[in-house]
Amino acid sequence: MKKTILLLSVAALLAAGCQCKQGPAATPAETVMANILQRKSVRAYTDDTIPAQVMENLLRAAMAAPSGRNLQPWSFVVLTDKSQYDSIFANNFNLPMFKASAAIVVVCADTTALMPPRDNRNADPLRQPNHLWRDDMGAVTENLLLAAEAHGLGACWTACYPYPDRMEPVKRLLGLPATVLPYCVVPIGYPAGDNQPKDKWDPARIHHGRW
Amino acid sequence: MKKTILLLSVAALLAAGCQCKQGPAATPAETVMANILQRKSVRAYTDDTIPAQVMENLLRAAMAAPSGRNLQPWSFVVLTDKSQYDSIFANNFNLPMFKASAAIVVVCADTTALMPPRDNRNADPLRQPNHLWRDDMGAVTENLLLAAEAHGLGACWTACYPYPDRMEPVKRLLGLPATVLPYCVVPIGYPAGDNQPKDKWDPARIHHGRW
Repeated sequence: MKKTILLLSVAALLAAGCQCKQGPAATPAETVMANILQRKSVRAYTDDTIPAQVMENLLRAAMAAPSGRNLQPWSFVVLTDKSQYDSIFANNFNLPMFKASAAIVVVCADTTALMPPRDNRNADPLRQPNHLWRDDMGAVTENLLLAAEAHGLGACWTACYPYPDRMEPVKRLLGLPATVLPYCVVPIGYPAGDNQPKDKWDPARIHHGRW
Repeated sequence: MKKTILLLSVAALLAAGCQCKQGPAATPAETVMANILQRKSVRAYTDDTIPAQVMENLLRAAMAAPSGRNLQPWSFVVLTDKSQYDSIFANNFNLPMFKASAAIVVVCADTTALMPPRDNRNADPLRQPNHLWRDDMGAVTENLLLAAEAHGLGACWTACYPYPDRMEPVKRLLGLPATVLPYCVVPIGYPAGDNQPKDKWDPARIHHGRW
């Protein structure tokens, strides 16, 4: 009897102990789901800087994205020197938000791939268009945002591609290679103010068997 | 003294109890990172079906994705009747994998948006091209895959757009509206066999200040 009570108490304490994780006794699935549902666009930041190890984690998450034929078309330029921003982001209405952030990740995409010709898999790789790079980059960016949320950071996905006027100064001033373009610009920092996620759940968007 | 020992035991048990979550006493950030890094393409599945509540969670995660101007261009068709697959996926080399899965999510995108004209925000909304739908859909699909991983499921992102021959039968047989296209097809099931994530971490892809 005493043993039962002890076991029950321990079970209750175990459940309570995990409250620190995320809600009462969160499972990994619950923690992951909560992070996905809590992610939001954050446009105001404190003055705190981002530790190098944290930024590495964010980029580690980004590089874990899937990619068509595993071509991994991504690269990243991390910016913290705000004196550059007026020129790099000259044509981007998000400039004030960029200046308020602790760091910016310019998420870049190589729109080509080195692949052997389809008719001769043993030949030297040729540079060819990669038709799926844009899909991959959406996943890359989402991983970056989710990792930022998990680390208590706030971030905001701002489009660069497909707008030529936004891309041109970024590409030129950051010295991107000819086949690489700036896909999006993500300012990151510790959130200031109250930031709440949108509830976008809409069962009407789910169809079963056919539309 | 007895109280101290009890407290220490409880602390040890709390720590041990959280090992089940993910590693020893994983923080939410560690759990989220582990899930992102553990996500992999899974192409072989057991015969187990997916509980309705779990599928709802996956779609809840998908709909929590960000979208340009919050236009939320996504919809989902969930398929489980394998007798349909030969015709719907007639031109898709992934057909055998689809048939092995417990369920398929056809992730759909409305390529247009109802928006007021730029020059008159008070006018009736017009149907206009949405230039960012494809970026949004990459994030939607990644959220779906991450939620599947978190629930112990395996999934595989297979492209449908931009291939007309793959899209045509899906669009016709599922009855998608004119402005909606099948973006990708994601088979999901409980993993069979050994599935390991790729380690894609590559610090050479990170640049600081400029390329």
